[in-house]
Amino acid sequence: MAVKSDSPVIRLGLIGLGGATNQMLPTLRSHPDVRIVAAADTHPDARDGFTAACGAPAYAEVEALCRDPRVNTVYVATPHQWHKEHALIAAACGKHIIVEKPMALSLEDCDAMMQAAHRHGVHLLIGHTHSFDAPVRRMREIIRSGELGPLAMINTWSYSNFLMRPRRPEELDTSLGGGIIYNQVPHQVDMVRLLGGGMVHSVRSMTWALEPGRPTEGSHLTFLQFEDGAAASLVFSGYDYFDSDEFHFWVGESGEQKAPDAHGKARAGLRRFADAREEGAFKARAAMAVGLGGAPQPASWHHPHCGVTIVSCAGGDMRPSADGVLVYDRQGRRELQVPRGPAFPDKASVLDEMAQAIRTARAPLHDGAWGMATMEVCAAVLQSARERREIVLRHQVPVRD
Amino acid sequence: MAVKSDSPVIRLGLIGLGGATNQMLPTLRSHPDVRIVAAADTHPDARDGFTAACGAPAYAEVEALCRDPRVNTVYVATPHQWHKEHALIAAACGKHIIVEKPMALSLEDCDAMMQAAHRHGVHLLIGHTHSFDAPVRRMREIIRSGELGPLAMINTWSYSNFLMRPRRPEELDTSLGGGIIYNQVPHQVDMVRLLGGGMVHSVRSMTWALEPGRPTEGSHLTFLQFEDGAAASLVFSGYDYFDSDEFHFWVGESGEQKAPDAHGKARAGLRRFADAREEGAFKARAAMAVGLGGAPQPASWHHPHCGVTIVSCAGGDMRPSADGVLVYDRQGRRELQVPRGPAFPDKASVLDEMAQAIRTARAPLHDGAWGMATMEVCAAVLQSARERREIVLRHQVPVRD
Repeated sequence: MAVKSDSPVIRLGLIGLGGATNQMLPTLRSHPDVRIVAAADTHPDARDGFTAACGAPAYAEVEALCRDPRVNTVYVATPHQWHKEHALIAAACGKHIIVEKPMALSLEDCDAMMQAAHRHGVHLLIGHTHSFDAPVRRMREIIRSGELGPLAMINTWSYSNFLMRPRRPEELDTSLGGGIIYNQVPHQVDMVRLLGGGMVHSVRSMTWALEPGRPTEGSHLTFLQFEDGAAASLVFSGYDYFDSDEFHFWVGESGEQKAPDAHGKARAGLRRFADAREEGAFKARAAMAVGLGGAPQPASWHHPHCGVTIVSCAGGDMRPSADGVLVYDRQGRRELQVPRGPAFPDKASVLDEMAQAIRTARAPLHDGAWGMATMEVCAAVLQSARERREIVLRHQVPVRD
Repeated sequence: MAVKSDSPVIRLGLIGLGGATNQMLPTLRSHPDVRIVAAADTHPDARDGFTAACGAPAYAEVEALCRDPRVNTVYVATPHQWHKEHALIAAACGKHIIVEKPMALSLEDCDAMMQAAHRHGVHLLIGHTHSFDAPVRRMREIIRSGELGPLAMINTWSYSNFLMRPRRPEELDTSLGGGIIYNQVPHQVDMVRLLGGGMVHSVRSMTWALEPGRPTEGSHLTFLQFEDGAAASLVFSGYDYFDSDEFHFWVGESGEQKAPDAHGKARAGLRRFADAREEGAFKARAAMAVGLGGAPQPASWHHPHCGVTIVSCAGGDMRPSADGVLVYDRQGRRELQVPRGPAFPDKASVLDEMAQAIRTARAPLHDGAWGMATMEVCAAVLQSARERREIVLRHQVPVRD
């Protein structure tokens, strides 16, 4: 682990000690610019565990955390419907803000968060999404450099067991931010917008809710038209049937090596629950039980990813590989190795981006306007599917690179 | 080879002795319901080769072939811009007609062919396309049976070297039927329409012509909305970069086992030609040089296919495998073996369908109206890309199964 400064750039307060925070902890602990100085959570057990593990105060109230002068940045990882309120409290207290995706559940809320950050002069950063993954950022650099010529199309497939893992009821209710639209589609949209330059002109989509008892979107197929003539297709299916990691070296979303014969196991695992209440209680316990150990660190791992993605330029195709980027161009096929951060799963670039924003006093790439543009696409996915027509967008912003 | 009857159901006249006919020959020779009784071609060498190989007359004029009373069915495999004229001659002579895809280059021509076949009481069948492939037909049966529940989405990717193989100038001119729109997209559309039931409501697409000196569409990305709520995405890229056969067991389009390290070789092979004229002359010679041996028969082979295709129903996903269909459902993953015809590449079901139509006096599934509906989608791909908007269709017909 890197030696940490006595006054790191990011003195972090964690808002919400659930699954997302646990996923982030290995990165937070190993990042040289970060020190965790406080937390807030409504569960006493979670607070006690945090204080025991980190030797730092844990508050029952978000307001109290945000008034703590040791904190200069908060990480908002509460259930989605609270993102706006917690971001607004933090902004009013002058804290920089990292908000887990989805940014919020409506464009109005996204706009309010963006305005609050602007008004109070704090940085607002939306992440982690898979647009932060190092291979994706490397592909963006190659596109921007022009070495493979103009971008034509991006096609991404993710077939997983997302919807068939244990879930709390709110995770299966779209109006509360459940289902794929607010949890998986933002990964795909954020990645594709980064690769394509950000400016999506329009969206044509279909979505499906196919599983009895899980009445939220579990799959979608979306066509994106970029303003400059590029286009993209996004496919997600979370029903635990085909697994697209078969096309990604059997490496899973976080970068872990996967067994190739686990089809149907998530679905089978749900049979142990008598009903939705029992399933929700298990999920809530599981998130807390991982506690403050953070994600278990495997012996070896690869880059995180959100499916199999093929990027086509005039002069060649690219795709993320297990450890870098595969380039298929006029010389044939070659692999570019891309370095990883020290922790599993690797989410270091979220912190890099915030630390850079604080140091330079320049807004991060994944700022409020960027996050709102991504959520506009997600909302248009729902609208296009409902109305069965193409939706033209109005809130897109370009990549600043 | 099966013993052939003295009066087979299909007494075939070949119109055009080029590459498509060569691809079809092994199937024609081995099919128990087919006897090749005559041919027509403008090239004297091709005619002489045919008569020497098959002991049957070869005509310089299509009209003469169509007047031959031994012929009851013609196989139209002339350059695309001649399909309509040759089909009309055959219909007027009372011959059943198999037309290679693309059916024709305009919907008006498709309609004229369909009307002529109807007026003269002959069967018109459009094929081979990959909708005839045995694994695709098996997946259609499973969808129709309802055992996997309602169809949601179909996603198909084909990344190949299609545009970078040696080509005649007309094969690189969209207005003459060149490029992917008339040669590869019909495979995808026909397959997806068969799987999805036929009734496409609308098309949203982008197309690209990315290669200097090859000014025709070489890639596309298309979203199809079916009337019943299913949807599909079709991706094709023919620039010899990424090869999607990597995701299909390294089995090529015809069913041949492929080398996994041939990226860029088609493109490199073009460097031997000084100019387009030399390339075109080579391609014309090559098609004829294969002569009447038909496609070389490998020691072993698999099912033909047109890329990697994932079909998602409410109760499971399916994809064509090398030798059958992979099903991923609530029980996990299993492979259904699907029998193949005796010849490579396997195109027997085209002949099966025509023989069945003649025997029963009922129109084949892939009749003129079906073929016109597929070409309507292909035309809408071009129009949607040009006008950057969704195109609603008017000539779709359902699968009759």
